[in-house]
Amino acid sequence: MTLNSVSPDFLNALSAALPADSLRAAEPRYLEEPRGRYQGQAGAVALPRTVHEVSEILKQANAAQVGVVPYGGGTGLVGGQIAPEGPVPLVLSLERMNAVRAVYPEENVLVAEAGVILADVQSAAEKVDRLFPLSLAAEGTARMGGLLATNAGGVNVLRYGNTRDLCLGLEAVLPNGEIWNGLTRLRKDNTGYDLRNLLIGAEGTLGVITAAALKLSPRPRGLGTALMVVPNPAAAIDLLALARDQFGEAVSAFELMHRQGLAFMAEHLPEIRQALDPCPEWCVLIDLGLAREANTDSALLELFEIAMERELVTDGTIAQSEAQRQEIWSVREHIPIANKAVGSIVSHDISLPISAIPAFVDQGGAALAKLGDMRINCFGHLGDGNLHYNVFPAAGRSRDDYADLRGDIQTCVHDLVAQFQGSFSAEHGVGRLKVSDLEHYGDPTKLAAMRAIKSALDPNGIMNPGAVLAEQ
Amino acid sequence: MTLNSVSPDFLNALSAALPADSLRAAEPRYLEEPRGRYQGQAGAVALPRTVHEVSEILKQANAAQVGVVPYGGGTGLVGGQIAPEGPVPLVLSLERMNAVRAVYPEENVLVAEAGVILADVQSAAEKVDRLFPLSLAAEGTARMGGLLATNAGGVNVLRYGNTRDLCLGLEAVLPNGEIWNGLTRLRKDNTGYDLRNLLIGAEGTLGVITAAALKLSPRPRGLGTALMVVPNPAAAIDLLALARDQFGEAVSAFELMHRQGLAFMAEHLPEIRQALDPCPEWCVLIDLGLAREANTDSALLELFEIAMERELVTDGTIAQSEAQRQEIWSVREHIPIANKAVGSIVSHDISLPISAIPAFVDQGGAALAKLGDMRINCFGHLGDGNLHYNVFPAAGRSRDDYADLRGDIQTCVHDLVAQFQGSFSAEHGVGRLKVSDLEHYGDPTKLAAMRAIKSALDPNGIMNPGAVLAEQ
Repeated sequence: MTLNSVSPDFLNALSAALPADSLRAAEPRYLEEPRGRYQGQAGAVALPRTVHEVSEILKQANAAQVGVVPYGGGTGLVGGQIAPEGPVPLVLSLERMNAVRAVYPEENVLVAEAGVILADVQSAAEKVDRLFPLSLAAEGTARMGGLLATNAGGVNVLRYGNTRDLCLGLEAVLPNGEIWNGLTRLRKDNTGYDLRNLLIGAEGTLGVITAAALKLSPRPRGLGTALMVVPNPAAAIDLLALARDQFGEAVSAFELMHRQGLAFMAEHLPEIRQALDPCPEWCVLIDLGLAREANTDSALLELFEIAMERELVTDGTIAQSEAQRQEIWSVREHIPIANKAVGSIVSHDISLPISAIPAFVDQGGAALAKLGDMRINCFGHLGDGNLHYNVFPAAGRSRDDYADLRGDIQTCVHDLVAQFQGSFSAEHGVGRLKVSDLEHYGDPTKLAAMRAIKSALDPNGIMNPGAVLAEQ
Repeated sequence: MTLNSVSPDFLNALSAALPADSLRAAEPRYLEEPRGRYQGQAGAVALPRTVHEVSEILKQANAAQVGVVPYGGGTGLVGGQIAPEGPVPLVLSLERMNAVRAVYPEENVLVAEAGVILADVQSAAEKVDRLFPLSLAAEGTARMGGLLATNAGGVNVLRYGNTRDLCLGLEAVLPNGEIWNGLTRLRKDNTGYDLRNLLIGAEGTLGVITAAALKLSPRPRGLGTALMVVPNPAAAIDLLALARDQFGEAVSAFELMHRQGLAFMAEHLPEIRQALDPCPEWCVLIDLGLAREANTDSALLELFEIAMERELVTDGTIAQSEAQRQEIWSVREHIPIANKAVGSIVSHDISLPISAIPAFVDQGGAALAKLGDMRINCFGHLGDGNLHYNVFPAAGRSRDDYADLRGDIQTCVHDLVAQFQGSFSAEHGVGRLKVSDLEHYGDPTKLAAMRAIKSALDPNGIMNPGAVLAEQ
């Protein structure tokens, strides 16, 4: 199926069917992405205010066989929101659908439109003394529609799950323009195929999410955070098991950090105070959220002491105040910013069976050393088996020196991940960046099923063409 | 697409491709179901031992256009495992694929084949000091494949989620016989469409699940159970919120019971000791599982006292020993057995937005009273908004007296559920019993998408024909 580029006739017809000011020329922000790998193209940006307008847009695009690229906050890291080539598409931004439609504190449910910024969902939940636990670096910019379409992760997945797990129901428009009213607030509903989870994680290739019923949680009252130095990743995994034995689900986050990341931060962000001196080779941030106010310091101290006995930790610090908690978290949150200042050769967003992580870290380092002199910053959501495994030039060299090695490094890492039955995309998705990885590493039966589903729901291939699945 | 009945030629060809003793005539147990509503038919039962044999069976059935009805433990309550009419199908029983393939305690993962009985998964987890939290009445008979295919619920959904939420990866055979190796143990994997959740809950209409990687949890050490008398369902909902504020995720179960069910039990199962005398109109069972050993009695007593102050409870009992815990649970577990002894006119497995439950209970009782003199036993998983709303004859009358009213009662209840944006199938699925409900109450866009997906993955319509979707 060949798509058509957006034409003046198409825009005229669409414009006539929508309220004034619904179409605009695409400003640069719609055509750029955070890592600067792609430069997009767009015949126009459509800015609908209602699900019915989204329906009208998809109906016309489907009839005219024009590609549609859904656009949320533009924070995706794999080019899912950017179409750099092929027939010129229409960008469909959900930013005007930014209402929190309803909050049901007694049900722990909030209904938000796709254009609501994550931080605003968090605030709306906080206003009714509830927690919306999705939390990630881009939370001030990322919008719910994109977070759902990419099944975003973040720091609280260990306790509360991915975005998928935080969604009870969806309102969406399918590629033919039909509206699905699936905005249920039910915890249990076994009436037919799981269309919700099919759209979540499909990265806009099967339809446009316009609103979601989201799960809230009670706000934990007893917050505590510690930074513990571990001798190696294997000890960190044992420490995680110990912490969960002690505290159950109250372990809200368990983040691994490596000396390389802390060193980058010391160099490029010296204003960020680092609690541990000297910089440990490996450390973990443990975040605890007990239901009731409690002495979390002493609880974390007890964990630390048991872990010391078992030689799982060698040093550490426990926050004694909310300011110290923020300080510890600030270190974790600034790692990506320090990384960006250094400039990676290539970044990997991988996941592994948790018990495979120590062997992966050893073998990954050894394999990359054979390719050249590089620095590795391996950090991330250890509790979920999700590592951000980013590779940097040796000190004093530039990423351009490694341009020829970039593909080899990525293949080396992803091959090793596959060998350990891991994933080459843990939380960022496939987008356009990893389409060939999916072709290469994906299960052939699953890929064939994905293509069959795509053809069935989007026979003209208008939805986010070129993302996730290679065009046939 | 018209299917063919199983023929001698088909069985001969299939038999030649499989090990000896892989095909048998269908004994009665494959053709009956717990509520006796359906009598099945089968050309034979296939009993594969491996995923490759399942693949061979589906390939041949697909080529011959013969229907295949997957069969697990036979405990489904909506006829999903029984084909009473149409061309005679092959029954595919997974009972020989009953190995626990691997246990990874350090990852909280267990890999089980589809034929493993739920109680055996629970035991295998317990052996490594872990919990597999899925728990329901049929756990001694139900098999994992069927539990996954129907996304079964049970008593611990509040804390641990439905079966869907307990599954990390699947191995499955699609209708064309292709094997999907999706048996990942990863907590995060955003590499393409969510085929796992599409097969989970599809009730065997999109393929056959042959194995699953299941999530285990740390075993809670501090167990406590209380029975609290509440003035009405609204107070029960407030009590749930209070309990979750106090204990967070440690509230493992929150079950509503009504006097009618307790009265049925007193009459038909007098050997079951009931802790509360006189029988309260409404009461809730609260189950607490703290990570560490703790004085759960005093924790529950504190909850009770706060709830008394707020007039949410009027009486109650807190288990002082494991024996007393079991006694309280035994009351809850025997409600369905007592129901069966009485014999319902019609049972409903419904869910509602939690805040709608009080109004539903009032209006449901009033609406049914207009239809005739009946007794209602409304009980179930209040924490999930899931009620089993079962309607019985008036005292001294028989269910046969109400045969003509049965449809009207069901329509009355399901219409009211739809009015409150609830679901006519919370945890039992659609099966064959609720196909027309799905047609009537289902969202038309979702139904069209389901049909498109079914046609795309199973163009010959061989998988569990007549279940979930009406045959076109």
